[in-house]
This record gives sequence, structure tokens and C-alpha cells, in this order.
Amino acid sequence: MVSPSAPYEQFTFFRTTFPALFVAHVETNRPGKLNAFNHEMFHEIRQVFNLLSYDPNVRVIVYSGAGPRGFCAGLDVEESSSTGPVGAPNTDRDFPRQSWDVRRHALSYQESVTSLERCEKPIICLMHGVAFGAGINFATAADVRYATRDMKLCLQEINVGLAPDVGALSRMPKLGVSYSWTKEVIYAGKVVGGDEALRVGLVSRVFDTKQEMVEAALSWAKEVATKSPVAVQSAKALWDFSRDRPVADGLLYTAAWNGTMVLSDDTKKGITSALKKRKPTFEKL
Amino acid sequence: MVSPSAPYEQFTFFRTTFPALFVAHVETNRPGKLNAFNHEMFHEIRQVFNLLSYDPNVRVIVYSGAGPRGFCAGLDVEESSSTGPVGAPNTDRDFPRQSWDVRRHALSYQESVTSLERCEKPIICLMHGVAFGAGINFATAADVRYATRDMKLCLQEINVGLAPDVGALSRMPKLGVSYSWTKEVIYAGKVVGGDEALRVGLVSRVFDTKQEMVEAALSWAKEVATKSPVAVQSAKALWDFSRDRPVADGLLYTAAWNGTMVLSDDTKKGITSALKKRKPTFEKL
Amino acid sequence: MVSPSAPYEQFTFFRTTFPALFVAHVETNRPGKLNAFNHEMFHEIRQVFNLLSYDPNVRVIVYSGAGPRGFCAGLDVEESSSTGPVGAPNTDRDFPRQSWDVRRHALSYQESVTSLERCEKPIICLMHGVAFGAGINFATAADVRYATRDMKLCLQEINVGLAPDVGALSRMPKLGVSYSWTKEVIYAGKVVGGDEALRVGLVSRVFDTKQEMVEAALSWAKEVATKSPVAVQSAKALWDFSRDRPVADGLLYTAAWNGTMVLSDDTKKGITSALKKRKPTFEKL
Amino acid sequence: MVSPSAPYEQFTFFRTTFPALFVAHVETNRPGKLNAFNHEMFHEIRQVFNLLSYDPNVRVIVYSGAGPRGFCAGLDVEESSSTGPVGAPNTDRDFPRQSWDVRRHALSYQESVTSLERCEKPIICLMHGVAFGAGINFATAADVRYATRDMKLCLQEINVGLAPDVGALSRMPKLGVSYSWTKEVIYAGKVVGGDEALRVGLVSRVFDTKQEMVEAALSWAKEVATKSPVAVQSAKALWDFSRDRPVADGLLYTAAWNGTMVLSDDTKKGITSALKKRKPTFEKL
Amino acid sequence: MVSPSAPYEQFTFFRTTFPALFVAHVETNRPGKLNAFNHEMFHEIRQVFNLLSYDPNVRVIVYSGAGPRGFCAGLDVEESSSTGPVGAPNTDRDFPRQSWDVRRHALSYQESVTSLERCEKPIICLMHGVAFGAGINFATAADVRYATRDMKLCLQEINVGLAPDVGALSRMPKLGVSYSWTKEVIYAGKVVGGDEALRVGLVSRVFDTKQEMVEAALSWAKEVATKSPVAVQSAKALWDFSRDRPVADGLLYTAAWNGTMVLSDDTKKGITSALKKRKPTFEKL
Amino acid sequence: MVSPSAPYEQFTFFRTTFPALFVAHVETNRPGKLNAFNHEMFHEIRQVFNLLSYDPNVRVIVYSGAGPRGFCAGLDVEESSSTGPVGAPNTDRDFPRQSWDVRRHALSYQESVTSLERCEKPIICLMHGVAFGAGINFATAADVRYATRDMKLCLQEINVGLAPDVGALSRMPKLGVSYSWTKEVIYAGKVVGGDEALRVGLVSRVFDTKQEMVEAALSWAKEVATKSPVAVQSAKALWDFSRDRPVADGLLYTAAWNGTMVLSDDTKKGITSALKKRKPTFEKL
Repeated sequence: MVSPSAPYEQFTFFRTTFPALFVAHVETNRPGKLNAFNHEMFHEIRQVFNLLSYDPNVRVIVYSGAGPRGFCAGLDVEESSSTGPVGAPNTDRDFPRQSWDVRRHALSYQESVTSLERCEKPIICLMHGVAFGAGINFATAADVRYATRDMKLCLQEINVGLAPDVGALSRMPKLGVSYSWTKEVIYAGKVVGGDEALRVGLVSRVFDTKQEMVEAALSWAKEVATKSPVAVQSAKALWDFSRDRPVADGLLYTAAWNGTMVLSDDTKKGITSALKKRKPTFEKL
Repeated sequence: MVSPSAPYEQFTFFRTTFPALFVAHVETNRPGKLNAFNHEMFHEIRQVFNLLSYDPNVRVIVYSGAGPRGFCAGLDVEESSSTGPVGAPNTDRDFPRQSWDVRRHALSYQESVTSLERCEKPIICLMHGVAFGAGINFATAADVRYATRDMKLCLQEINVGLAPDVGALSRMPKLGVSYSWTKEVIYAGKVVGGDEALRVGLVSRVFDTKQEMVEAALSWAKEVATKSPVAVQSAKALWDFSRDRPVADGLLYTAAWNGTMVLSDDTKKGITSALKKRKPTFEKL
Repeated sequence: MVSPSAPYEQFTFFRTTFPALFVAHVETNRPGKLNAFNHEMFHEIRQVFNLLSYDPNVRVIVYSGAGPRGFCAGLDVEESSSTGPVGAPNTDRDFPRQSWDVRRHALSYQESVTSLERCEKPIICLMHGVAFGAGINFATAADVRYATRDMKLCLQEINVGLAPDVGALSRMPKLGVSYSWTKEVIYAGKVVGGDEALRVGLVSRVFDTKQEMVEAALSWAKEVATKSPVAVQSAKALWDFSRDRPVADGLLYTAAWNGTMVLSDDTKKGITSALKKRKPTFEKL
Repeated sequence: MVSPSAPYEQFTFFRTTFPALFVAHVETNRPGKLNAFNHEMFHEIRQVFNLLSYDPNVRVIVYSGAGPRGFCAGLDVEESSSTGPVGAPNTDRDFPRQSWDVRRHALSYQESVTSLERCEKPIICLMHGVAFGAGINFATAADVRYATRDMKLCLQEINVGLAPDVGALSRMPKLGVSYSWTKEVIYAGKVVGGDEALRVGLVSRVFDTKQEMVEAALSWAKEVATKSPVAVQSAKALWDFSRDRPVADGLLYTAAWNGTMVLSDDTKKGITSALKKRKPTFEKL
Repeated sequence: MVSPSAPYEQFTFFRTTFPALFVAHVETNRPGKLNAFNHEMFHEIRQVFNLLSYDPNVRVIVYSGAGPRGFCAGLDVEESSSTGPVGAPNTDRDFPRQSWDVRRHALSYQESVTSLERCEKPIICLMHGVAFGAGINFATAADVRYATRDMKLCLQEINVGLAPDVGALSRMPKLGVSYSWTKEVIYAGKVVGGDEALRVGLVSRVFDTKQEMVEAALSWAKEVATKSPVAVQSAKALWDFSRDRPVADGLLYTAAWNGTMVLSDDTKKGITSALKKRKPTFEKL
Repeated sequence: MVSPSAPYEQFTFFRTTFPALFVAHVETNRPGKLNAFNHEMFHEIRQVFNLLSYDPNVRVIVYSGAGPRGFCAGLDVEESSSTGPVGAPNTDRDFPRQSWDVRRHALSYQESVTSLERCEKPIICLMHGVAFGAGINFATAADVRYATRDMKLCLQEINVGLAPDVGALSRMPKLGVSYSWTKEVIYAGKVVGGDEALRVGLVSRVFDTKQEMVEAALSWAKEVATKSPVAVQSAKALWDFSRDRPVADGLLYTAAWNGTMVLSDDTKKGITSALKKRKPTFEKL
């Protein structure tokens, strides 16, 4: 039997393991740099989540950062300030052409961040220690967020002279979190701890240690993994569609989608099992 | 004089009473089945709220479930797993045609849920004990929600193999509640108590007993009933329009609407009474 | 040297001071009337915020109400109930023409409220004591809100027979605040204190006294004023665009905008300063 | 065998016949009044099209006006100027309350017009002679329009002092017709003939006589009736959804819808028949 | 008696006359420069149309260019290439700050163009001879367009190295004109004559001479001026709202708007006059 | 010197040539099968247009079908009826899971079609002879369309039992073409010739022979290639953004985009050259 992790071993900066049936655990794996993102990592992460999205052996994904010091230190400043269309613009070209290059670059990085939202499976993102800049863009594209008490979350971009541009500013107004609080924090480049993040709903649980957080996330993931994948992945698709559109459009899309999906074997199994007080098992999707 | 409740007596599963001037109280009245919804009830509830919407004797509505055990047990599983296009699809037809039937069915049930949102009067929904599945769809289409501490709220659909499809997934992203929390709860089919629902803002008050909750709701409703019906019902209409649209569109609609409504006798009465520190009474709408 | 406040001295009802570098403080200055808004004030406030929006000496704005008793008592009832198209409609015209006049009037007042949202600089709004009606429309068009414990916030319009029509009903569904709570409060015309406003996220901090609140706001404003104005003002523009649109549109707009802005000198300075652990200073915008 | 027309015989003002297999022909049948719409007709027409929408014996609908003189003379002026909330407003109520009544009334009439758009089957609307006011609202809610050369189309509302309010102004900007032409015609209340309507694309064919037009429409309808009902009705649903939304949303909805529908027996039959150059027959939907 | 044109005499570059009751005629009046737009003209035109919008003596507006040679030569190239943030950017500032200045500038010019769309009265725009660049932005913001056969319409911006940015690219996809044709013309900077513009629907009538065109436009305008201003101006407002939004939203807005407007004296007069075959006169709006 | 076509030589089914400076010509190159699309071709075409999108040597693209008989015969029926999730669904899975597979498949094919719209350069699509099914999806995603008189355009899907699902139904309502005509044609699966396509605006020119059409397209393309690439590609980006959004949003995006782009060297060169009546040359983008 081929190990399910085989296709995931090609990546340098992301480690994907399978701690339980149908549960994948993705780790940004560059602890020496506090999991800062370089160019290659933006490329890799998209591939990882695209693979997971269609992998029938995966139903739910835990995403965290390797090492004890933090989830993500943001962009790899050394690299990004010396290469690429931002760090080393082609000054032979007029400024608008340089700007054109940066826009293409930003669209590509946005695509990497959006790969978490597009991934068909629920993703829970775990933030411990430093959770800066680029990392927040990925975290806000996940479905669920947990934090440790010692988390130091910061939209660090503001502190180094730019506005975040790969997702955080577009997704934060949609998270059900107080605008007054979010804008207060963003404009001042303020660092936010785990308890405060919980209080305002940016994360939904907070823990004393990273280990406790990972255990709780795996426990949640295992529970989700027992549910019908048709049901869970439909819920993600329908919620995310509805988030950006009027209720009436969400209803139409839901009716078109579920007209088929409620006829799955899972619904029958689910109801029968509920009546018989048994735990059903569901076919792969 | 014909009692105002006359037209409401035709319904089998919904009891409508008028505990105070301009206040209606609708109860799902199938306590023996824990207020589970059968097909007929989806049909009836829409008629009830359509009647209330245009009834000049009603200005605010309390909606709860009869009996001590719960607000709603969800769909009547027995019925829904053996009849209708989901429970007993017409297998003489090819699968897409069966799916077509289910979509029509879903659109019709959605219409029943949406009748609460379309109802011109504010609706406060009271959840005690079991608050499962179908019930949550109706609750999230109401304006205000209260709960008892012992509430057991659950989007139970996920636990029986399907995604909710008659409104909850389209309306929950619009409730001003933390996404991280909501998705954590939904994907895992988790049961939520009253205190937690209050903490995240899904409900706005929590009570020890159903009786206390009903009394508090009636007290709130009586207060609302003393306000100008033009003002209150305009507020509902304008808020709901704005929820789904850019602020600029909300403003345009509001200006068109209120260009007329602020010229009502109610505004004059309201201002005069405020100056004279008297309590005004308003004509029916 | 011309004092930066010169152009701001033309206004009767708004006092604008500059308590720190790049920080403006706007006060509604009609304490004898509890800062109630008359017609002229709607006209003036728009001019004030339009000036501030393009003033290179201003990077962040504190907005409060003068005097000890309150932020704003709402509309100047005396004036508004005896003049203008609402208080003194031209009854020589048929009713629809009177309504047409009111719509134009509402659009103009909305424009005044929207001038806070359109202002390119972040605005923090401070509410103490009475915070009624018109005042809430302005407060919800600001970016950040603080309150004192003794704040008495009320959408007073409902209590005098009309629905708010110059912005509050269109912006409140977008604030990341529980809908159940907001509608409960609005329909009943309920008065809300500072602690409750903090709990639900309508404001992000609460204080014992107005003085403490102003000091804290100035302290926050000074911090924001040290950041790159390109970064901070881009963040406001991108957030506000994203709030009203699908995430995908927010991302597109952000990429077009930031394709240029991340090439500013501020980004280079910001990164260099961060690496050298120095505090950068940024050119005016 | 029960004639398929049985349920359609309850209507006074609409005659529904079945000139060919799967083809329904609806006629406004009040030729003595030039098919002018009274209140009851708005109620009836909605029921007719709702019935047709789910009738498996119907795949395409021809809609025309009975008699030689015209498709529709608009509203029944006599009735509408003396009854109902517009013709006979309840002057015991203040003006805003009268306006509230009219809004409810307009929403109901709009619902009748929209029943053509909501009807799952394609509708071809045939306009001959007088085609005024209310009639245009229905015509623009149909899928396809034919006219006779002698058609006298007019948004007559403008000529009697009001703007059309039950659909024409909301649908005409979506018909792929020159705005300059349409606005020129509307503001001046101009009468348009068949050839001009063809030239600008408001109708897609024009005929010398009503009889030729009906024959051509039936011929088209018979052709459509031979196609897969899954294919044709999906095309209507997907087009109409896409019309009002960004291309990206149309694509998402289409993928969700057709993920199921292309698996129908019809696709298999269709392809096999095409390869064998045979004419397939499709099961009812 | 003060001539109605008094407030319009303050403008240097726009001549406003009143050739018939309720009809205004605005002319760009810089024939020596082929009516090219300088900075001051962008400022003036907005004021002109804002005045007309609320002027009760005006019900319809003809807009043309003075002199025999053309409607508009576009931007005043001499001025715009040597002043302002585009022609003479402040090169002491970094490039992003220069871009920031241009964006503010563009928003201001867009506002001038949009003043035609925002003007409550229908505007017919007459294009003869040269109709280049800036002129097209204004023309596409009008309601109706006529042309002479010798019109030379060109989105000239493309030919001088930029994309149009003050309205044409945002409004042309909404005009009901073939996309294939429009894009073919735009990308190639092609010059379009009057007959071709008529064929594709960009204009709705074409004439041999400017004089014939003006006469026809005045004749149309006089006809429109006899209609109820409530009806005509409502039609413009409702159409324009519907253009940018789903049909369902257009219907809601229309019902809210017309709930009041159909109760105007104009409706009663209009119907009575129609029955009595008399020509009604309507009160000012 | 490396020929610019090098990276384009990897494709089996698409031939890309460079008939003039900055002009690319893409041909579907499977004339033996009348350019029918198989699975691999959907994969290849996306890569071709993605390459062209960022290729600085390309400014405009001509897209046609190889061989004398037609532009495209649609899907490769043989392949698509025997392989893939539609032709050979995995019947070991329940029907909803098969539908899930088809949805993923449709989204991928849609992505291939959308690659033409996403391509930054204008694309002119040339249709001769058979232009069926899949081909129409690509044609409607191009910017400009030409046809030969003998074109036989048909949304053939309807004739083989399904609704088009990879783009045509979502893009056709946006083409500025009469809805009545389009729906008449689509529902009946009617074949449309070149002259008719021109009359309704689906194409913008029609020719007697393929050769004449290609020559005219190249001539247009060469003209476009002389323009500023910043101007032309900005025009495509801004138009396409505006097409799907309210005018107000198009304006905002345009101002943000062009705030930078009008500062390009191209604008200066363009204006200088215009004044000196010289032909400018522009740097690559």
C-alpha cells in the first residue's frame, strides 16, 4: 500500500502528516527562520492545499507552524527586500511598468493564500508565539482559528510601511469580528495576545501551550472526520458562497447544490444510524 | 367584535395568541414530537407569518416552541425519511430528475423559513431545551434570539449526513457572530448551550427557565408595541435591505423609503410627545 | 509659518485643534445644546472632514463632543420640527412632491455622514454621556469607537416616531456586532451603556471618564501618526472597499492599488528601519 | 384520460390550450376590453404560470392576447382609477400609510409579472396591435418576443402621469437593447412599431399578421418541445441567474447545477442519437 | 421677473439657454478650441448640472457643443500635458505619492462626468463633427445620444497612450451596444461615424446637419417637457438604479419609490385627461 | 536569437505563430477532427493563453481554427462520451459523488475558457464554417469576434441533451446582444450564419472567405499592436472589471488603476507624438 503521504513529500518547506484517519496535518516547516515565507513557499503551499483539496483520504486539515517559537514571522524580509518586483524592481522600466509587475506578483501571492479558502476540506489554523504579517493572511483564509495565550498576532506590514495586500484586509471585514477593534489594532500595528483574540472572536479557543492546542485541534479534527464528507464539504462550500452574497443568492445556490447532495447514501446512513443510535461510516468523496 | 385570533385558528400545528395589545405569540405546538417539523408544518408556518405580516393589530411577534422539553427537534425524521422527494424519491426517474424534484422541494421549504424574514414585524425567537436542525433555520431568520441556559442548539443535519439547506448556512454568516466559532461548531455538529450562544452573540439574552425567558420577551415586545409601527417596521425593512448590500445602496433605499415615512403623523406625535414628556399612541399601520 | 488650523477656523460649530504632530482633534462644539445637530452643522461637518481628508499635515483624527454632558443629543429637535422639508413641508405641493423634497434632504444629510467614511484618514470617535440619534450615524461612520462607562447611546429616532435615515441602519449591519443584540436594542429604542457597548464590540475600549478616554485616544492617534501615511491610508481604503464586496473583488482592488503603493519610499524605509531597529519617519502624503 | 387542460379551466381571463405535444398556449382572454388587466387578472396570471412551471406535460409556452385588436391595452383604467390603494386610497389614514398600502400592492403585482420569469419553461410572448403599459411588463419578463408590423408598443404609464412600477423599468436595461433608444422612447411615451422593435432587438422577429406570428411561434415552440427538457430548462435557469450576476458567479452556479444535470439520461440519448442521426425522445421532467 | 437663466450666467465655458418651457439647452462654449476641456471646465460643468438637477423650471436638458466643427476635441492637451498631477507631477514626491495625487484628480473628474447621470432630469447629448476623448465620457453619462452623419467619435485616449479613466470604460459595457463592436473600436482607437453609431445603438438617431439634429432634439425635449415631471424623473431614477443591480433589487426599490409617487396629483390628472382626451398640465417638481 | 515561438512549440493541438511584430496567431490545430476539443486540448489551451498573457513580445492575439471546414466542431463526442466523469462516471460511487466529480471537471474546463478572458492582451476570435458547442464558449470569452458568411454557429449542447456549462450561458447575457434573439436561438438549438450574427452584434464584421477574415483580423491586430500596451491592456482590464459591477465600482477601480498608469512614459510619448504628428513607439510591458 502506498502511504498517503507520498505525493506530499516533494515539498521542502511544508511537512504533511496524517495523524489519524482522514486527518491531515500541514506544518510550515522552516523553524530556523520562524517560519517566515520566502518566494518558494508561496509556490509550495498552494500546491499542498490543492493536493489536499482533491485527496479522498483527507477530510479535515490542521495547519500550524513548526517549532516552539511561532506560527509565522511574516515575509522573509531579507529575501523580499532584495529580490522580486518589490525588493528589486526592474528600474530600466518606467514606474508604471514596475507597478504592473508588482500587481501580477500580488495576484500570484493572493492565489496562494486563497488556496486555503478554495480547498474543499475544513482547515483549522493554529497560532502560537509569533504570528505576523503573511501568516495572518493565511490564518484568515482558514475556517477555524485557535491560539495560544502567548500568541503575538500582528499585521506587521503596517509597521514596515505598507498595507497588507495578499488577503487579510479583504477577509477580516468578513470574520464576524468587531470592526472598531480590528481597525484600532490594524492602524496602530498593535500586537494581540490569545485571550484578546478569543474575546473578540478572531479565534474560537485559546490554550496555555502549543501542545495542548495541537491536541485539541486533532481531537476536533477527528470528530469532523467521522462526519459525512459530503455533508461537511458541502457546508464549507455553501457557507463560503453565502458569505459574499445576498441571502437570496445563498439560498438559490444551496438549493441547486443540495438538490443532489441530500440524495447521497450518507443521508440515508446518517438517518438510519441516528435512529439506531449507531455510529455510521461514510464512503470516501 | 371578531377576536383578532380568528383567522389564526385554522392551523393545526401553530398556536397564535395575543398576550398584549399589538403583541402576537406564535408557538410551534407539537410538543409530543418535541415540535419536530413535518411537511404540513412547513406549509402552515408560512401562512401564519404571512397573515401576521399584514395584520394591523400586530406590531411585534414572539415565537417559541410549546412544551417544556424544547424549541424544536428538527425535521420529523420518521416522516422525512419515508416520504417526499428526499425520503422516497421517484426512482422511476433518472437521478437528475430526482434531484430536480428535491431542488423544488428545498426552494419551497426555504420560502417557509424566509417568511419570518419577509414578515414586516420584528420577531423574537425563544429557544429552550432542544433546538435542532430545522428549528435553527427558523431561529436565524428571526430578528432577535433569546435562549435558556439549558438550550441544546445543534445544526444536527451534519450529524445525519447532510448540509443544512433551508436557510441556516446562508444566514449565519450575516449574524455578526465569529466565523471561527460558527464553523468550529457546524463542522463538528457540536451542541451549544445558552451561555455560549450569548457569549458569541448568537442570542442576546439568556435565562434560567423558559418562563423567565417568555416573560422577558413579552416585556420587550410590549415596549416595542408602544413605538410607532411606521418607525419600527421601517427599521426592519431598511436594516434587512442594507445587510445584503453595499452601504451606498442601503443609503439610497433608505432615502427613497424615508422620504415618505418621516412625514407620517407618528413623527409629529413622537416629537411633540417627547417635548411634552408624554407617551404618544400611534395609529395602526 | 501659517498655523495648520487656519482653514479650520471658519466653522462655527466645529473646533479643530492639532494636539500632536499629524493628529487632528475635531469637536462638535455646541455644548449648550448638548451638541445637537442643526442644519448648518450638517453642512459644516462635511467641509471639516473634506478638508482634513486632503490635508498633508493630518494623518489621524480624533472626533468627540465638547462639554461634560454628552457627545451628541441628536437632531436639534426645536429646529428640525419647525423648519426644513420635514418640520415645515411645503403644503402647497402634493404629498409626493413633499416626499421628493425630503428625499433630497436625506441624501444631503447622508452625504455629511458619509464624509467621515470618505475621509482618507482614520477617525476615532469618542462617545461620552448622551450619544443620541444623529450622533450615532456619525459614530458608525468612523473607523474606531471608544466610550465612557456613563455613555447613554440610543437610536433615539425610534422613540420619536421615525426610523433613522442618514446612515446608522445601513452601517450597523456591517460593524461585526451581534445582529440579535443590535435589533433588540434598536426596535425598543433602548439606551446602552459603555460596558455593554464594549461587550458586543460596538466600541473597542471603555473608560471611567471623558478625560481618560481623550488621553487614550490621543495616545493611540500619536502611535498611528508615526506610521507610514501611505500604509495607514491604504489600509482604510482597502478595508472599506472590501467590506461591501466579495473577497475576490477586494483582492483585485488591493492588487491594483498596492501594485503601486508597496513601491513607496516608506516600504524601503520601513524595512530598513525594522532591520536596524530604528524608528523611521515618513514623508507627507 | 384527463385532458391536460383541466386545472387550467378555472380561470376567467386566461385561456390555456395545448396545440401540440408539450406546448401550451396562454391567451389573455378579455378582448372586449382589449385585454386590459384588472385586479383579478393579476391574481390569475400568476396562478396560470405557476401551474405551467411544474406541469410535466408542458415544455414551452406561447403567450399572446386574444382578439384581433391588440395584445394588451394596459391597466383597466376604469377599475384602477376607482378602486384599490391607488385609485381609492384610504384617506382616513395619513399619507405615508396610504403609500405603505401602495407599496404592498406594487410588490404583489410585481410578483405576478415575475411569475413569467420564475416559470421554469421558456415563454415566447406575441405582441400584435395595441401593446401598452401593463402588457409590456409581462412581455419583458418573457424569454423571447415576436411582434406584428402593426404593433403599437408604448410604456403608456408615462403618458398618464406615473413611472412604470411592476417590472418594465427593472428589466429593460437587461434586454441587450440600446439604452439611448430605450430611454428616448420611454421618456417621451413614444409608440413603437414592429419593425423598429426588431431593428433594436426588443423583439426577434416581426410578421405581417397575427396569424403568421402565432404559426411561427408554434413552429418554434414545437421545435423546442423536442429538445431535452432538462437541457432547455437548465438553460433558462442558468441564463437568468447569470444575467444579474458577475460572470464568475454564473460559472459557479452552472458548475453546481450541471454537475448533476449532464449525467441525465438525456445527455446519453442525445449523444447516441446524434451519432446515429436519429431523433431522440426524452422523458418528462 | 428674474430670468430663469440668471444663476447660469456665472459660467465661462458653458452657455445655458431656455429655448422652450421647461427645456434647458447647455452648450460647451469654447468653439475656438473645438470645445476641448480644460481644468476649469470640469469644475464648471458639474455646477451647471447640479443646478439644473434641482431647478423646478427645468424638466429636460439638451447638451451639445458650440460652433460648427465639433462636439468636443477631448482634453485640452496643451494644458493637461503641462499642468496638474498628470502633466506636471510633483517630482519631489516619490512615485506612489504622485500616483496618489492622480487618483484624487481622477476621482474629481469622474465626479464631474457623473453629475450628468446624477442630474434628476433626462439629458440628450448631441454629437457633431469631432467627438473625442473627454467628450465621450460625458456623452455616455447622458440618457439619450443623437449624432450627425459627419460625427467623428473616437476614444482618442488610446491613441495618445492611456486608457480612458473618467467614465467611458465603466459606462460603455452598460449601454446595450455590442461588446465585440465596442472593443474592436476602442483597442484600435478607431474613428466612428454617425451611421455606424446608429447601427450599433450607441446613438438612437442620426442627422445630416447639426441644425437638424438640434431641432429634432428640441422637439423631443418639448414633448418630454409636457409629461409629468414626477413620472419622467422617477423613470430616470428607477432605470439607472436597476441598470447596475439584479432585477429583484430594481423591483424592491421601484416599489418603495412608487408607493408614494403613483399617489401624486399627476397620476389623477393624467388618467382623467386621458379619459377626456385632453392634454394635462402638471405642477412643478 | 531565440525565436519568440519557442515556448509555444510544446503544444500538440495549438499552433502559435507571430505574423507581425507583437501579434500572435493561435490556431486550434486539429483540422482532421474539425478542431473538436478533447480533454488534453482543454489543458493545453489554458497554458497557451497563460503564456501569451505575460509574454512581453505579444500585444494582441488572433485566435482561429485550422483548416477550411470550421472553427470548432464542439467537444470530441467520441472521447467525451466514453471517458471522464461525464462519459464514464465511476458507478461504484453513489450518484451525488459522481455529480461531485463532474462539478470539479466543469470548474476545470471553465478555467480553460476563462483563460482567454484573464489573458491580459486583447483577443480577436475568427469563426468560419462549423462553430459549435465548446467553440462558442471560447469565442464568447474573447474580446472581439469576426465571422465568415458561411459560419454555422450553434450552441449544439442543447441538441444533444444538455445545457452549455463552461461559459457560454454565463457570458452571452453580457455581450450587448438582444436577449430575445439569443434565447430564441439557444432554446431551439438553431444554427446561425455570419450575416445574422453581425446584424445582432454577436460578431462585429463578416467576410466572404476565411482568408479575407484572417487578413482583416491581422490588419486590425497590427494597428492595435502599434498602440501603447499600457493603454490597451489597461482598457481590457478596466472594461472587464466594469462589465460585472455597478458603474460606481468601475469608476473606483479605474481611478486606482489609472492613478499610476497615466503617469507612464507612454502617455508623454503619446501626447508629444500627437502634437508633432509622429507615430510613437512604446516600450514593452
